[in-house]
Amino acid sequence: MSKLRVAVLGAKGRIGSEAVRAVEAAEDLELVAALGRGDTLETLRDSGAQVVVELTTPDSVMANLEFCVRNGMHAVVGTTGWTDDRLAQLNSWLDASPSTGVLIAPNFSIGAVLTMKFAQIAAPYFESAEVIELHHPNKADAPSGTASRTAQLIAAARADAGSAPMPDATATALDGARGADVDGIPVHSVRLRGLLAHQEVLLGAEGETLTVRHDSLHHSSFMPGILLGARRVVTAPGLTFGLEHFLDLN
Amino acid sequence: MSKLRVAVLGAKGRIGSEAVRAVEAAEDLELVAALGRGDTLETLRDSGAQVVVELTTPDSVMANLEFCVRNGMHAVVGTTGWTDDRLAQLNSWLDASPSTGVLIAPNFSIGAVLTMKFAQIAAPYFESAEVIELHHPNKADAPSGTASRTAQLIAAARADAGSAPMPDATATALDGARGADVDGIPVHSVRLRGLLAHQEVLLGAEGETLTVRHDSLHHSSFMPGILLGARRVVTAPGLTFGLEHFLDLN
Amino acid sequence: MSKLRVAVLGAKGRIGSEAVRAVEAAEDLELVAALGRGDTLETLRDSGAQVVVELTTPDSVMANLEFCVRNGMHAVVGTTGWTDDRLAQLNSWLDASPSTGVLIAPNFSIGAVLTMKFAQIAAPYFESAEVIELHHPNKADAPSGTASRTAQLIAAARADAGSAPMPDATATALDGARGADVDGIPVHSVRLRGLLAHQEVLLGAEGETLTVRHDSLHHSSFMPGILLGARRVVTAPGLTFGLEHFLDLN
Amino acid sequence: MSKLRVAVLGAKGRIGSEAVRAVEAAEDLELVAALGRGDTLETLRDSGAQVVVELTTPDSVMANLEFCVRNGMHAVVGTTGWTDDRLAQLNSWLDASPSTGVLIAPNFSIGAVLTMKFAQIAAPYFESAEVIELHHPNKADAPSGTASRTAQLIAAARADAGSAPMPDATATALDGARGADVDGIPVHSVRLRGLLAHQEVLLGAEGETLTVRHDSLHHSSFMPGILLGARRVVTAPGLTFGLEHFLDLN
Repeated sequence: MSKLRVAVLGAKGRIGSEAVRAVEAAEDLELVAALGRGDTLETLRDSGAQVVVELTTPDSVMANLEFCVRNGMHAVVGTTGWTDDRLAQLNSWLDASPSTGVLIAPNFSIGAVLTMKFAQIAAPYFESAEVIELHHPNKADAPSGTASRTAQLIAAARADAGSAPMPDATATALDGARGADVDGIPVHSVRLRGLLAHQEVLLGAEGETLTVRHDSLHHSSFMPGILLGARRVVTAPGLTFGLEHFLDLN
Repeated sequence: MSKLRVAVLGAKGRIGSEAVRAVEAAEDLELVAALGRGDTLETLRDSGAQVVVELTTPDSVMANLEFCVRNGMHAVVGTTGWTDDRLAQLNSWLDASPSTGVLIAPNFSIGAVLTMKFAQIAAPYFESAEVIELHHPNKADAPSGTASRTAQLIAAARADAGSAPMPDATATALDGARGADVDGIPVHSVRLRGLLAHQEVLLGAEGETLTVRHDSLHHSSFMPGILLGARRVVTAPGLTFGLEHFLDLN
Repeated sequence: MSKLRVAVLGAKGRIGSEAVRAVEAAEDLELVAALGRGDTLETLRDSGAQVVVELTTPDSVMANLEFCVRNGMHAVVGTTGWTDDRLAQLNSWLDASPSTGVLIAPNFSIGAVLTMKFAQIAAPYFESAEVIELHHPNKADAPSGTASRTAQLIAAARADAGSAPMPDATATALDGARGADVDGIPVHSVRLRGLLAHQEVLLGAEGETLTVRHDSLHHSSFMPGILLGARRVVTAPGLTFGLEHFLDLN
Repeated sequence: MSKLRVAVLGAKGRIGSEAVRAVEAAEDLELVAALGRGDTLETLRDSGAQVVVELTTPDSVMANLEFCVRNGMHAVVGTTGWTDDRLAQLNSWLDASPSTGVLIAPNFSIGAVLTMKFAQIAAPYFESAEVIELHHPNKADAPSGTASRTAQLIAAARADAGSAPMPDATATALDGARGADVDGIPVHSVRLRGLLAHQEVLLGAEGETLTVRHDSLHHSSFMPGILLGARRVVTAPGLTFGLEHFLDLN
């Protein structure tokens, strides 16, 4: 069987260099190009890449994707900063190249994606839901983007299911004790030396609780998701937003 | 909206009496009969029950279900002891009453059912999987039936996905350290005073782990599953085995 | 060996009735009186009790203890509402009866007491410390008294050790995300159906974290602490405040 | 205040090179020598070191310590392979140099040491105790040395307290389900990709459980213990075995 030809853009970055190694190590993939800041997109075309892994910056991602799509190269995109305008632009390029696929994933950690999906599936069956995220103390924002997104998904799933308001008899509380309110879901942020990135979704019903916990110990955890994206995007024309669409969830 | 008429068989038992209270407390359900050992099935027919919750014993369940199905009453069954012969017999009755539905559920805890389902979904995306179950020290068997079933589902999901063998460099081990082997999945059983019934599924990949934990603190946790079964079985003719088929898992 | 003679005051209450059963079940203790609201203290003296377990209300505790101490009966006290004035009054009675011992314990759960003690011991060796407490959603206050007390003990231990401020680079946060501030220690309160009373102390240093978790599933967990108090108070004249003083912590 | 002069032996190794950086970064310590395989012990004497951190191999540790003790340099030793004979030999050297201190620590992780100590303190107050250790799948032995040691300490603490046998009604079990038996304490070993080194001590009594969990994410977690050892060994003449003796545990 011939190998899938993969190029990496942003190959000198922290995640990019790891992606280069991951593609090289995968038996069914062939690394045909690894481009850094100085390289030209012509190199990319010459490489014969079927899939381009885009791990650059919001400044360069649009030009890179325009080039890829126009040349019929599928793309797996980890670069952030997506707006409605940018997505509309990308879709117009894809309309003109209907067999090309692009996967944009805000999070390539399969564990994080599954945690969010499971929270969403389970939420309607439980009266209570809260999120605890725990990170190293150098993190600047609280809650984490993943925790906020998880809370929003839980809230939406509860709304869709017509869930009753969550029980909470708190009458007197210290400021902050009950966490941040994200669409009605309490989110608690712990910052602790020695931690990396961790998240717990707690769901409670009469007589039982269900906890989904994701521990991310290294950004190498993004690699299986990137490789999975590369393998699947070639048979998924058009724009796919979110790695969850490439997971078998049944 | 008229209420769904529900009867409980085995209404004097530990779970049955709780089911009686749960049906009475549900706004969309009406308890029309609560039968114990001495009561006759005629009472059941006279009650006008649409759904019968069957929580008796393996000795009486078959006669009860034959009566229900013949009379067009749907059933939600928690009684255990199902063999292929018994299922075939039940199916033959259902063939003769094609609009009647029967749900048999080995486990009515929605948390336990979701834990198993999530383990199954996630397993193919992780290199390693183990199960830890923790119970009160009066439990006679180890591992628990739920833990064994969970391990089997994980093993089957891995086999279907063509997963590589799990990594394990253990060269010297004390007897039992690596747990029981259930279809290749290590299962560990903790017995501790103060615990009730708990289970953790641990999944690990490069740089990340995913843990699904279910804590069951009281058999009242079966009630939401029983009520959900009663509401859905009326539109699910034929035999349904396993509560998971009545959950929205997408 | 003769058994220690124990009386229970407040024997009809939820904790009191459990204490009655626990004393009866203990091989080295003899229940000589179980007094409820209508009973007189004369009954207590006539019973020959050596130790009185006081589980009544702030309204009656002072009169009960005055009687006990004046009659040379040791006491184990779970009733709350202690002020400096009340403690001074109690001490004056004890001064007049120098061989009598009284144990007042805000918390009889040995697990809770050990959790606080361990948090206190460990805190100076870690850069970061936070507390998460998780309770059923009918609880009116947040954080729990135990969690606040734990945070205060951690803060005091850090101050004594001259610990540097905890690292926290949070620059933008949603209100409440970083929890309540109790003497500089973040405390997070989760309220979830299906939970009872749980607390986690998280400590973090470079490359490692230490977590102490206490799960309280039933107020029966107070009984071992009450019995231990009864056994030890007879050889501890004067006032002892806090069960931790009766535990061997080395 | 003058800084404490510290030398590192085995400075090129994985732990040793980290120790060099840690000493350099500590404001109250001065790194005066960092010796690798080719260096001679004369260098050590010339450096004026007050404390030597010994992180070499069982082959060279005895000669190194003889030299240190004879020259009145205190030592902090992480090298393993200690036998009664070796300890006796070391003690004879220390007898001849009564103001010199040597700390040998099988484990420099303060979190691991505290976990063991807390397990030991708490064990007599709980009916049940089990240990779960979780490591990466490249580990060759099961259970881990730390878990076995922890179980032994728990068993000894229970024996000292005259604890009753642990409750366990297990009648039918799959081989290995109940873990390895270490002095009567069940120990369970999990091997999972994505994990590093983790340990949980579970203690259970009527109505409550206490869990102490240690997560070790990097061998940098040994550094605080090594530095603490260096600071304290100068005032602890003779042999100290185990970092716990230098921690304030009250």
